Amino acid sequence: MDQRISVVTLGVKSLEISRKFYVDGLGWTPAFENEEIIFFQAGGMVFALFLRDQLAADFQADPATFGQAAIALGHNVREKGQVDPLMQRAAAAGAKILKPAREAPWGGYSGYFADPDGFAWEIAWNPDWHPATDGSISIR
Amino acid sequence: MDQRISVVTLGVKSLEISRKFYVDGLGWTPAFENEEIIFFQAGGMVFALFLRDQLAADFQADPATFGQAAIALGHNVREKGQVDPLMQRAAAAGAKILKPAREAPWGGYSGYFADPDGFAWEIAWNPDWHPATDGSISIR
Repeated sequence: MDQRISVVTLGVKSLEISRKFYVDGLGWTPAFENEEIIFFQAGGMVFALFLRDQLAADFQADPATFGQAAIALGHNVREKGQVDPLMQRAAAAGAKILKPAREAPWGGYSGYFADPDGFAWEIAWNPDWHPATDGSISIR
Repeated sequence: MDQRISVVTLGVKSLEISRKFYVDGLGWTPAFENEEIIFFQAGGMVFALFLRDQLAADFQADPATFGQAAIALGHNVREKGQVDPLMQRAAAAGAKILKPAREAPWGGYSGYFADPDGFAWEIAWNPDWHPATDGSISIR
């Protein structure tokens, strides 16, 4: 099995609320959307927002047991100075700041916010992980 | 904010169990690992397995409230015939089959399995989403 994630799909309560956050708030552009799902092209992968009850049905999970995800999505930036403005933009878009950006024990600078469904996003500058021109990132 | 996810980090109970599944079972190769985290290069992004209590601490969440994630990770393949063997390989590696692969209402063929921590992975063939040579995927 290739070491690759093709799609990350978040189960969300309301596409209207999610759209307001990701499209109006963060400025992302959908590639496709209908009444139950929104797809975004995200570099070489796809990011999807899908109504959580339908996502649960899709893999036959019980929507009632969906809790706060033990997961974090990371967004790495090229310059340390880009972290705070992105945290502020997310907050302005309605994100809850989980952890204000600070110096990290691994030598970088990062903070966390939660999207409207509580999914944690880390905005991080890592001096050893430089995003390439196309935005892709490599461990060295 | 660029439309990009740099890192997907799953909070896991035991790195030994996760390693057995992803490395020994699925055949993935770590790029870095220590006693609390394993990083994999996954195309232009990074996939991480991180001890869940430490992940919780990283974004100041309560580990006790972590539940089954309302999230799914997708792995798209080029040929319909690649889905069943990957599902079988995952099962052989210890995955729980959530939904055996079947024809999907959107015209493809897909199934779901859960990794040792219950994270849902969809193995999918979508006739409209062809992975490129480098494995990246684009919505058309």
